Amino acid sequence: VASCIVEQCRADLFDLQSIEDAAAIAGNLAIPIVAALTQKVAAANPEAAGFVHWGATSQDILDTGLVLQLRKAVAATGVLIQRLGDAVSFQTRAHQRTILAGRTWLQHGSPVTLGAKLAATLTALDRDRARIREMGNRLFAIQFGGAVGNLAALGTRGVEIAAGFAQELELSMPATPWHTQRDRLCECATVLGIANATAGKLARDVSLMAQTEVGELNEPAAAGRGGSSTLPQKRNPVGCAIALASAVQVPGLVATMLSASIQEHERGLGNWPAEWETLPKIVVLTGSSLAAMGDVIAGLEVDSARMSANMAITRGQIFAESVQTALAPVLGRGTAHKLVAELVKVAQKQRRDLSAVIASDTRVTRSLSERAMRDLFDPHEYLGSTDAFIRAAL
Amino acid sequence: VASCIVEQCRADLFDLQSIEDAAAIAGNLAIPIVAALTQKVAAANPEAAGFVHWGATSQDILDTGLVLQLRKAVAATGVLIQRLGDAVSFQTRAHQRTILAGRTWLQHGSPVTLGAKLAATLTALDRDRARIREMGNRLFAIQFGGAVGNLAALGTRGVEIAAGFAQELELSMPATPWHTQRDRLCECATVLGIANATAGKLARDVSLMAQTEVGELNEPAAAGRGGSSTLPQKRNPVGCAIALASAVQVPGLVATMLSASIQEHERGLGNWPAEWETLPKIVVLTGSSLAAMGDVIAGLEVDSARMSANMAITRGQIFAESVQTALAPVLGRGTAHKLVAELVKVAQKQRRDLSAVIASDTRVTRSLSERAMRDLFDPHEYLGSTDAFIRAAL
Amino acid sequence: VASCIVEQCRADLFDLQSIEDAAAIAGNLAIPIVAALTQKVAAANPEAAGFVHWGATSQDILDTGLVLQLRKAVAATGVLIQRLGDAVSFQTRAHQRTILAGRTWLQHGSPVTLGAKLAATLTALDRDRARIREMGNRLFAIQFGGAVGNLAALGTRGVEIAAGFAQELELSMPATPWHTQRDRLCECATVLGIANATAGKLARDVSLMAQTEVGELNEPAAAGRGGSSTLPQKRNPVGCAIALASAVQVPGLVATMLSASIQEHERGLGNWPAEWETLPKIVVLTGSSLAAMGDVIAGLEVDSARMSANMAITRGQIFAESVQTALAPVLGRGTAHKLVAELVKVAQKQRRDLSAVIASDTRVTRSLSERAMRDLFDPHEYLGSTDAFIRAAL
Amino acid sequence: VASCIVEQCRADLFDLQSIEDAAAIAGNLAIPIVAALTQKVAAANPEAAGFVHWGATSQDILDTGLVLQLRKAVAATGVLIQRLGDAVSFQTRAHQRTILAGRTWLQHGSPVTLGAKLAATLTALDRDRARIREMGNRLFAIQFGGAVGNLAALGTRGVEIAAGFAQELELSMPATPWHTQRDRLCECATVLGIANATAGKLARDVSLMAQTEVGELNEPAAAGRGGSSTLPQKRNPVGCAIALASAVQVPGLVATMLSASIQEHERGLGNWPAEWETLPKIVVLTGSSLAAMGDVIAGLEVDSARMSANMAITRGQIFAESVQTALAPVLGRGTAHKLVAELVKVAQKQRRDLSAVIASDTRVTRSLSERAMRDLFDPHEYLGSTDAFIRAAL
Repeated sequence: VASCIVEQCRADLFDLQSIEDAAAIAGNLAIPIVAALTQKVAAANPEAAGFVHWGATSQDILDTGLVLQLRKAVAATGVLIQRLGDAVSFQTRAHQRTILAGRTWLQHGSPVTLGAKLAATLTALDRDRARIREMGNRLFAIQFGGAVGNLAALGTRGVEIAAGFAQELELSMPATPWHTQRDRLCECATVLGIANATAGKLARDVSLMAQTEVGELNEPAAAGRGGSSTLPQKRNPVGCAIALASAVQVPGLVATMLSASIQEHERGLGNWPAEWETLPKIVVLTGSSLAAMGDVIAGLEVDSARMSANMAITRGQIFAESVQTALAPVLGRGTAHKLVAELVKVAQKQRRDLSAVIASDTRVTRSLSERAMRDLFDPHEYLGSTDAFIRAAL
Repeated sequence: VASCIVEQCRADLFDLQSIEDAAAIAGNLAIPIVAALTQKVAAANPEAAGFVHWGATSQDILDTGLVLQLRKAVAATGVLIQRLGDAVSFQTRAHQRTILAGRTWLQHGSPVTLGAKLAATLTALDRDRARIREMGNRLFAIQFGGAVGNLAALGTRGVEIAAGFAQELELSMPATPWHTQRDRLCECATVLGIANATAGKLARDVSLMAQTEVGELNEPAAAGRGGSSTLPQKRNPVGCAIALASAVQVPGLVATMLSASIQEHERGLGNWPAEWETLPKIVVLTGSSLAAMGDVIAGLEVDSARMSANMAITRGQIFAESVQTALAPVLGRGTAHKLVAELVKVAQKQRRDLSAVIASDTRVTRSLSERAMRDLFDPHEYLGSTDAFIRAAL
Repeated sequence: VASCIVEQCRADLFDLQSIEDAAAIAGNLAIPIVAALTQKVAAANPEAAGFVHWGATSQDILDTGLVLQLRKAVAATGVLIQRLGDAVSFQTRAHQRTILAGRTWLQHGSPVTLGAKLAATLTALDRDRARIREMGNRLFAIQFGGAVGNLAALGTRGVEIAAGFAQELELSMPATPWHTQRDRLCECATVLGIANATAGKLARDVSLMAQTEVGELNEPAAAGRGGSSTLPQKRNPVGCAIALASAVQVPGLVATMLSASIQEHERGLGNWPAEWETLPKIVVLTGSSLAAMGDVIAGLEVDSARMSANMAITRGQIFAESVQTALAPVLGRGTAHKLVAELVKVAQKQRRDLSAVIASDTRVTRSLSERAMRDLFDPHEYLGSTDAFIRAAL
Repeated sequence: VASCIVEQCRADLFDLQSIEDAAAIAGNLAIPIVAALTQKVAAANPEAAGFVHWGATSQDILDTGLVLQLRKAVAATGVLIQRLGDAVSFQTRAHQRTILAGRTWLQHGSPVTLGAKLAATLTALDRDRARIREMGNRLFAIQFGGAVGNLAALGTRGVEIAAGFAQELELSMPATPWHTQRDRLCECATVLGIANATAGKLARDVSLMAQTEVGELNEPAAAGRGGSSTLPQKRNPVGCAIALASAVQVPGLVATMLSASIQEHERGLGNWPAEWETLPKIVVLTGSSLAAMGDVIAGLEVDSARMSANMAITRGQIFAESVQTALAPVLGRGTAHKLVAELVKVAQKQRRDLSAVIASDTRVTRSLSERAMRDLFDPHEYLGSTDAFIRAAL
């Protein structure tokens, strides 16, 4: 009997359009699928038709189907994270010593290296991967509870049949059905949502560094990519645009999943269908974001000359903390901070190099040798623990 | 020198109001705290003052402080989950066999037990706990990177000092600073957000069962609790109201955390302060929800007579699936479904008991013995795997 | 020349699939459409092809197209609101005096009428309509600014051509292009979002009143509507489910629109595409919710006998405020409140009718005549301004 | 009697802390306030105490109080919008002809003027003001319905007393009470949310133009403003940070208001308290954002030399569309687009000025006079309808 049913369980035998149409009236997809399957089985073996969908409820079918899809989707997301991670890792190594301005509040702070910027992303991707792995232990479970979650229609054999169902699908057997305990799906939404934000943050940085006035990075060029319908010179950062568009959309969708998870009693009213388009959308947006940034980072064009030129924009003010750090042991950190702030203002007012202003201030020259003063403006001398952090991240 | 600084690091020495006022201008709390601390240290030991805040940036202080607070808050949340779990566990055992209507789409489905309803919550709380545990491995890490995340102001000793800092605070040492990689905090927001939803779902169910027309459950009574300013008879489910109010608010706040996590470069502009009130609010709302539901479940008043009475409302229709299940082996599931649906309609139209309608239908009487027909309307005979599921959950 | 171009501007001439495919690479739909259109025009008149898309940018085309679609969609939404309003209005009149329990905190408060419940929805729908009307003055405007919003490619004739464009489409001419001022679209999202909530609140109430234990309302019956794949007796409130599913999804989508509206400079990066699926989704969800509730209310089944029966559940406690109001002039409101609360407790404890308890309390009998006491338990005597409010709403 | 009650209705007579404490148990603020007020009135006139809160329910008091606060808050918001609008208006006039790079996708497009950039914001602020005005007609209404919204406790005099109440407070009299029709408050949340986004978009632009590498704008300087705890040279755009922090937070809060508006029956469970901190937070965030940007724009430092310098970064490519526009009448728009795109690539590859590349291409020189070619690179010649748009906006 079972094999008669199994034989008909092939997607290509079904008229998807008519199932879709019927679902609009029935309220979910499972009802017309079960009807169509029963009909097909009946044609082959009327007796077998009597056993189709026995003991199950619509949500058992749709939730388990969703979990099977999520298993694939999450694995694919993992591959995309890996691919992005590999690209980030490659560029981290390649640019461990590529120096550029570190920026805080969108203002120059102190020098950093491109490798260090990317290394921080690398660790975030590692944590994203860990979350996905840990989530899998909870998420990949069958849904099988029947109408009200006790498999009553299967009499005393419910657990046994459920276990077989789980084994067949290589999913885990949950302690209880979870028709209205949606934390597994919420976790999936949030874990993907966080990975999506990791890619989004990276996209924000790349796009800021690709601004015409910054020009330190560029997305890889490709024919027909990033053009404009009216501006002939444009080469838009389309990969970053994809990731940023995802970054804007996913938080609201995650909120929807959390709101929808307050589902009534044994099966809720309205909140369950609210998940149907929301979670898949999160999956697709996250995947497209990770994929886009994987391409961007793998083919990233780096203009280190421009990075150096940008660091020079402030005529040495990017080394203000470096100067302060050198003066602090002599003058105390507070006094040094105030002195350097004062000298920076002089440099700004007189449009002079900070190094020149410093070299002509006796409070500084009293404290530092000429050689030491020169080193203060060498970014290689002020990278602190950069290498150690990069090593730890790799 | 260090001990001079340590001596002044006591919250009670500071004028919180003036720090708060200064923070509004400075843009964050760390700047006026560092200024005030430096002043205090200077009064005791001018030389030591020169070393206050050396190498750190404001965000190092505020993030690490936040992590220390979160460590306490998350532990407290864990205790609240445990307490709620204990209460749920107790009631699950106590009501393993307390039968009531299982409800789907807010309509009677088949009978369930109160124990089974609560058991599903129990497994969700277990998963919430697991998520919190796993999150801890990532979340409880120091933030220490200096202005642009490379600890440049500490020269070659950055990592060593950071390690000491971590050890001192019993926090882990992250591979790199995470000033603009906010996934740890987002994870905290989402993991708490999911636990909050677990409590919210429970509150929804309890409040629905506490409706005047349902009357199966009541929150524990307490003086001054749940009264109305105008209706003298009111005993409002205030615990559930707290949990539901949290359930409505947290999803939007979680979305904010995800949106805010797209932070620029080495330290972002505006998104960081967006976290300051959002994450604590999530912590407080989740805690108050879990606490409220802990009280509600621990002192839950259960009216099992009302549960029985409610099951009788449909004159046996709640046993329709039970009848169908019994007929299916004889007639096939599809035919049985249609037949029972037809008999249910007759019962509804004629306002008769379903058992009577069934007993007078030859298609049924041909298939089932009188004894079998009677058993169909005994809820104890149609609980399927209830006990097994409850055992698994406990 | 213009007519050559116009002739080719017919959707049926284009291969939508190939445009869709090309859009994925180009980054938006306008680029491949312009390319395809230019090709078609060139085939007919090479010279004319040189003028296709002159002065416009992709976003001009897509935004104006969106506004044209929204004009239709908003009008359709208005019709759905009208239709729902008519149904609500009809039932308000029909049930102006149909008495049922008023509920606060999901507990019985005092009696109300079904008409009064619906009248409040009616006023909300009126306000929804007013908002839509007012929004129209802002929303239905062309987008036409060229690459950076100054129509530079049209030399000195930009405004003139824009005005003609607006006139042709019967849209208004905005003071300036609004490529990155998205408040019009956000307003559309929020105004629809609020109308969606109006329908959602109505759905919540109907679905609560349709609970098996309440049974006061039922959605209209229809073949194949609201069945279950396993429970033969089910008649699920599928209209309410649609509306509630929308109510859960729209708030997160509205948040996305607001987040997306922070668009950079003359045209943003990534936030614009974030609108593309979000706003249409809000439109569709809101429309389906209003339509579903229009059907539900138009065919609403009202069981007034059940309403009366439900009011009796508390043995007169639903009249507690009525009693208090009668006693207040004699005893003072505070004393009356306390006295009635006390008598309610007696009634609850002794499972007696509140009227009996009251009739045997000398503090009450001293204050009220027997006739007066009887009237206190007649819901028709305690409807206050119900009729006036309904009249005002109609 | 009434005057006895009125005399005690003074905030300074109440112990706020004890009311706050009692509210935590009672579930809302009105209950302990009514209790305290009754006590005070009783002390002065026991008879009058019997009339305190007659006919009202807690929510009547809290909602009406909220509306009174919102009336002030909305007026204050209007003033802040006006102030920001005045500042934007002033700078629009002052910089009508200040030319800088127009940017799309964070890349240079064509030249624009600072005035035009600001003019677009001006029109958005106008629409924000219009929305606020229109909202006022709905929002500023009393809440007065008693326990279940029919003023039953006031017998036949409900509407009359309500009208007096409305008149006293100078609020409008709504057709019906709106305890669970929250669209007015949702509208307030969304209208403010949109105004908040207007300020946020402005802040994004200013902060991008204030980047060290762009340097076109700066926030007004002030002592202690925008400093860093470790970087002595920093002058952070703190005003923009405030506005951007608001822009990130408000969307989630707006979503909460919409979610919370699905309130059950005559008064909801849990959703109402969810509004209590959410709407005020939206008000405060929006106000602080508008205020911060008002200051920023009023004192904006504009570096027009830097704007010119930035336009030169691409060696004339920012005029690519200008060249294309000049060639299009001769070559057709499509051919011109392709030709200019080709010449831009040559200029990029050879690192030459676009003007030089163009002057040496016969396809161009054949089409354009020398004089015409020179004008193509004068931004003043390619501003299109800029002035007309600015005039329309002012």
